[in-house]
Amino acid sequence: MRRLPLTLLAASLILAVGTASAATQTTIPAAAVKAAEQLRDKAMNDNTSYQIVESLTTEVGPRLAGSPADQRGREWAIAKFKALGFDKVYTEQVTYPLWERRSEHAEIVAPFPQPLTLIALGYSSGTPKGGLTADVVRFDSLDALKKADPASVKGKIVYVDARMQRHKDGQDYAIGSAIRVGGPVIASKMGAAAFLLRSAGTDANSRTPHTGVTGFKDPKEAIPAAALSNPDADQLTRVLAHGKPVSIKLELDCGISGTYTGANVIGEFTGKKHPDEVVAIGGHLDSWDPGTGAIDDGAGVAIAMAAAKLIGEMPQRPDRTIRVIAFANEEMGLWGGRAYADKHGAEVAKFQLGTESDFGARKVWRMSASVKPEARGAIEQMAQVLAPIGVAYDAKRAGGGGSDLSQMHAKGMAALSLTQDGTDYFDFHHTANDTLDKIDPKELAQNVAVYAAFSYMAAQANGDFGSAPGAFANDGAEE
Amino acid sequence: MRRLPLTLLAASLILAVGTASAATQTTIPAAAVKAAEQLRDKAMNDNTSYQIVESLTTEVGPRLAGSPADQRGREWAIAKFKALGFDKVYTEQVTYPLWERRSEHAEIVAPFPQPLTLIALGYSSGTPKGGLTADVVRFDSLDALKKADPASVKGKIVYVDARMQRHKDGQDYAIGSAIRVGGPVIASKMGAAAFLLRSAGTDANSRTPHTGVTGFKDPKEAIPAAALSNPDADQLTRVLAHGKPVSIKLELDCGISGTYTGANVIGEFTGKKHPDEVVAIGGHLDSWDPGTGAIDDGAGVAIAMAAAKLIGEMPQRPDRTIRVIAFANEEMGLWGGRAYADKHGAEVAKFQLGTESDFGARKVWRMSASVKPEARGAIEQMAQVLAPIGVAYDAKRAGGGGSDLSQMHAKGMAALSLTQDGTDYFDFHHTANDTLDKIDPKELAQNVAVYAAFSYMAAQANGDFGSAPGAFANDGAEE
Repeated sequence: MRRLPLTLLAASLILAVGTASAATQTTIPAAAVKAAEQLRDKAMNDNTSYQIVESLTTEVGPRLAGSPADQRGREWAIAKFKALGFDKVYTEQVTYPLWERRSEHAEIVAPFPQPLTLIALGYSSGTPKGGLTADVVRFDSLDALKKADPASVKGKIVYVDARMQRHKDGQDYAIGSAIRVGGPVIASKMGAAAFLLRSAGTDANSRTPHTGVTGFKDPKEAIPAAALSNPDADQLTRVLAHGKPVSIKLELDCGISGTYTGANVIGEFTGKKHPDEVVAIGGHLDSWDPGTGAIDDGAGVAIAMAAAKLIGEMPQRPDRTIRVIAFANEEMGLWGGRAYADKHGAEVAKFQLGTESDFGARKVWRMSASVKPEARGAIEQMAQVLAPIGVAYDAKRAGGGGSDLSQMHAKGMAALSLTQDGTDYFDFHHTANDTLDKIDPKELAQNVAVYAAFSYMAAQANGDFGSAPGAFANDGAEE
Repeated sequence: MRRLPLTLLAASLILAVGTASAATQTTIPAAAVKAAEQLRDKAMNDNTSYQIVESLTTEVGPRLAGSPADQRGREWAIAKFKALGFDKVYTEQVTYPLWERRSEHAEIVAPFPQPLTLIALGYSSGTPKGGLTADVVRFDSLDALKKADPASVKGKIVYVDARMQRHKDGQDYAIGSAIRVGGPVIASKMGAAAFLLRSAGTDANSRTPHTGVTGFKDPKEAIPAAALSNPDADQLTRVLAHGKPVSIKLELDCGISGTYTGANVIGEFTGKKHPDEVVAIGGHLDSWDPGTGAIDDGAGVAIAMAAAKLIGEMPQRPDRTIRVIAFANEEMGLWGGRAYADKHGAEVAKFQLGTESDFGARKVWRMSASVKPEARGAIEQMAQVLAPIGVAYDAKRAGGGGSDLSQMHAKGMAALSLTQDGTDYFDFHHTANDTLDKIDPKELAQNVAVYAAFSYMAAQANGDFGSAPGAFANDGAEE
């Protein structure tokens, strides 16, 4: 899951709704609304999504992009799409740098020798054989690091120690991810020997560090970079408070070892009237490796597969195609999403509406949309179907399309955001604790209800939602 | 912390109270009761205990018995006793087998390859170099293992999969510890290649496995033995449910590598009237190694040290000696407690009353005692002082003296049990999550209030509590 600082939707977009002429309104036919209500109610009592995520996390387990499990994940996805009865199942290649994690170890050498629990970050370099030992210099924010005298940082282990708090919308991830992505790059430029952060996570009492990607674009600029668990960060901060020089030995065996070609795995139910017009939903198939990628993002894959399957079980195929995309390597830089947009951006006008699920498995509580003004009425029709299951429509916010599909949105795809309750998401995100037991089957089923109902209505709409090259540039979408 | 299945106190002990003659009653003088109330109230607002456990867990960190940190722990304890102003500080040697943990790794090889998070158990043997691969055979209880046909177990990895639930008194640890201690021995005798259990812990959703000791008495009988975290046990159980043979590769590098001599570290405030008569309190200085031993048992050491220090700050020394014992290697078999009882058992009658804190850092909610009938009145006087801070006196239960001091109780020492709220104790016990952040300074201070008040009253009592060789044999004490 990727989340960038929020910008509110431009007010002009709202004003535009009022000026749209009635003649050009996109609408959902009454029969489609009724069918969507039935899909919704059926989904709320359907266990398919949980069975899918249980299958993925049990039979494949962790799925680090480029690892042997990445290929097993693709094989699983192809087999699962087929078993669920999708009309078409295919893959599209995605090529990216292969980053591998082999081992990691850290200890305070002085003044109080003891091990530290940490995890290397994506694109971190390894340490020299035998490890790297240096003194620690602590900063309490990214800004403080930026303002530091480079001489005070050179040759040191930079440690940025900022806490995240729990919020329903996960807003503090903006703080944590900025440090994790940007901090290592800044520290490297300042001549630091290595970079540590307090995990970008809200589990204040758990020894499960949070991995995630850094902003290193070139292996030559990479330095060893890792996240301490929250209690380990507390410990390091306490040790530093004694006022003596604190020396840490880091041994990270990881790094880029070539290039890997994986694939987005795609399944669709083919539209009856307009097979070339597509409602695009999905999740990402890769996961970080310490956990089994249950909430990030087995859940997203399962929600989209199960929602499409419910539509596929209807007596007739929908008017437009329902496409489920299980993206490759979201975690290390939206590689699957970017490859998809590179390949399909030119045909963006054929994408009726899209969004990806990549914020866990709790209930969807908010819907927002980036669509043309004339389609606001259709979005409101969707909102009425979703309101009884707890989804509030926020007409003032943009819809970003989710993580990978943000790239198609950036090309001009009309997009929703279907925001899950993220209160405890960052307790588990990118940790060993991202496991199946964190998923409540009933909450997951509510997500399927949301995805099935909106997808079907979008597929049956009279009219489009405004997808066109460059249509939603600068709409302030947050994803 | 060690806890054996509970037997209720023999009813005869209760009946005996009624028949004690008034002339021989042990009593606490009114002035001592008043002073104890003042100690209690002062302790409730004193932060010393938290400072002590912060110092121990930060400056020493994990303290596996026999490790380099074990010696640093003793040096810390000697220095801390001195800094706190104790009259006498000394050590008494304790010799035990040196068990070392170097590394551990496990993975499911087939049918669904993936890593498993586990931790080796105390006295586990290592696997051969390159690891050990075998099929898994699952049992849902220790009884089921005992009843199994040895032919079905021979050469296999035995996996016992029983869950513990949270209880205020931690009662389910009787289940978990019986499996962890007894299971490996039974599996070894049946010819198993290795032993796994679902962690003896109540953190159902945390990838932090619980270590702890096994019952192996002879390295020759030891097999590789380890605990899976609860989510990993869930995962293994799900994989097994597919009905195919499940093969696991275990690599444990650990084992007994000789003999080590450590020490109990002892500090006392010397009694003014009866310096040779002792109130004995304490905790154990060693810890398991994945965490920093905050609740198990830095807290116990800190509670006892801080309670004694408060008494030592009074204008006069108490009538009897207050002795704080920081025991060596409780975790791998009460080595410190047994050495202490071996050395001091013959002088048990000089031990006025004793108990050790080794069940975490939550508030004490229950007091029970094993004392002579004529001292029940004095215990009730203590109970009245402790009731305002939430301690209920249960006259029907025995007092076991805590983990290491259970050995002196077994020799005939009058003993209390001061039971803490253990509802979440087994979430963290023997895991990486046993860290300082689990301790609430206010709850810890309540413990100090309890220990300071009872210790002082015991030291000032007119009369004794019945300590004598063999005095409390078979009283059904649970510790």
